[in-house]
Amino acid sequence: MAETPHFKRIAILGVGLIGSSLARVVRREGLADEVVGLARSEATRERILALGLVDRAEADPAAAVAGADLVVLALHLGGYEAVGTAIAPHLAEGAIVTDVGSAKRAVIDRLGALLPSHAHLVPGHPVAGTEHSGPDAGFAELFQDRWCILTPDAGADPDAVETVAGMWRAGGMMVEIMDAEHHDLVLALTSHLPHAIAYTIVGTATELEGDLQSEVIKFSAGGFRDFTRIAATNPEFWRDVFLANRDAILEVLARFTEDLTALRKALRQGDGAALHEMFLRTHAIRRGIIEAGQDQAEEDKRKDG
Amino acid sequence: MAETPHFKRIAILGVGLIGSSLARVVRREGLADEVVGLARSEATRERILALGLVDRAEADPAAAVAGADLVVLALHLGGYEAVGTAIAPHLAEGAIVTDVGSAKRAVIDRLGALLPSHAHLVPGHPVAGTEHSGPDAGFAELFQDRWCILTPDAGADPDAVETVAGMWRAGGMMVEIMDAEHHDLVLALTSHLPHAIAYTIVGTATELEGDLQSEVIKFSAGGFRDFTRIAATNPEFWRDVFLANRDAILEVLARFTEDLTALRKALRQGDGAALHEMFLRTHAIRRGIIEAGQDQAEEDKRKDG
Repeated sequence: MAETPHFKRIAILGVGLIGSSLARVVRREGLADEVVGLARSEATRERILALGLVDRAEADPAAAVAGADLVVLALHLGGYEAVGTAIAPHLAEGAIVTDVGSAKRAVIDRLGALLPSHAHLVPGHPVAGTEHSGPDAGFAELFQDRWCILTPDAGADPDAVETVAGMWRAGGMMVEIMDAEHHDLVLALTSHLPHAIAYTIVGTATELEGDLQSEVIKFSAGGFRDFTRIAATNPEFWRDVFLANRDAILEVLARFTEDLTALRKALRQGDGAALHEMFLRTHAIRRGIIEAGQDQAEEDKRKDG
Repeated sequence: MAETPHFKRIAILGVGLIGSSLARVVRREGLADEVVGLARSEATRERILALGLVDRAEADPAAAVAGADLVVLALHLGGYEAVGTAIAPHLAEGAIVTDVGSAKRAVIDRLGALLPSHAHLVPGHPVAGTEHSGPDAGFAELFQDRWCILTPDAGADPDAVETVAGMWRAGGMMVEIMDAEHHDLVLALTSHLPHAIAYTIVGTATELEGDLQSEVIKFSAGGFRDFTRIAATNPEFWRDVFLANRDAILEVLARFTEDLTALRKALRQGDGAALHEMFLRTHAIRRGIIEAGQDQAEEDKRKDG
């Protein structure tokens, strides 16, 4: 495994949950001489300075990336085009540009076309998060023992890819390289589809008459509250992800709808054997997740016990 | 509020997660002179005796309920009819029969017809649980600050209802009385629909080719693992719940499917404004749940902070 990289100047464009958590990692691990943060609002710029997350806070993308050897886009996917256009003429020779977006083919298509050939694009996706947002919600341990997926195109510079990988490893992540299309399909299923469904079911509940709605809240411990936790994350963020990964999400939605239709039919027919069979086959996946160490609550329990 | 009840003999029929947690509450609060547990397997009978959960472990329902002033059915809904038939001739004069089932109209119809008129039926549903099952998984705090719904019929004995309510309050529960039909609709939405969907989405994933499936497990932190946690609970239990509450579940599934179709359409059309609107309206419900104190993780965070 390569050494931990060191940067003269890291520009973090967007200092929300992910961006601020990365800034905390950069501080903790001493990954850069200088950290520059981009934030549109003055309040956020003041806050990230007060938290000590950055050395300099900029409102102008061009000023933020000037002289940076690493540029990290950590803003919503919907903002990539405008920011990409603004920073392109100001990127330093050999600068590495990476991102944290949850859809990758769209990023390569949009950003790749904008960047100058003397900059290296290494699209990335640290698969970690909470339902909270903003610079105060971040923490350096967010990435610990989670996966980061990098989706460099065939012609990408191997050193640039290894440098970005090294940065995420310093944050405690395990790094995997895969095709952008494959990433988009896997994430459509593991993340985007669950969010689509969580939003839908909570939406179904919000349309109930007032009396029933307050009872849904009261008795949510039965399973519903887990959906509301998933659905609580930032709506603008998710709108952008859905638009950027539309095709893959539509495909998994179609598969899911087929399976849900089969369950409805079994239920309507009172077919207990078919229901039992459906409910049984999910156990293997659950066991796999616990064994793969991807369930923190279970892991904590095992450590305590 | 009435006093905490005291029983000469409580018979707990089924000593799994809920039954054993209730037994622990009975011990902690000293609610009974004697606790009798019903368990079909000899291993479970030995285990519940070894854990000190019961004074006596029986394999025969008739022997378990003889002389008991309170009988609690804490087994799967599919076992109610056989056990109800077996215990009916042996219930003591004035015995209260209650249960913990997740569907209530079916319980009243099935059990109500079987019981003798000298026994009092008070159907109940403590809305609490974990993904684990069996007597070792139970703990007395499972019910703390959760809701218990009682659905007595119009002719039910008020003292018997109050006695059952007092028992759950001793376990830390808040008690609400409502119509069985209303309970079934609320729970179809807050609990049964989430489980139907969680099972379905995990099932969709299990049908993927091997390579993709192992990646789904690897990258499950993005939201998917929360579904697998919901879907991990006992398949027999859920088959019985679905069959017992079929009509209400089919109704909410129909509503959900309509809403999911609308989301798919918005996504296919690339309608960002419509997606944003859908994602926004869920925030109010989530806030309501946190304010109602039904999200333990959030509550713990607030206490720590």
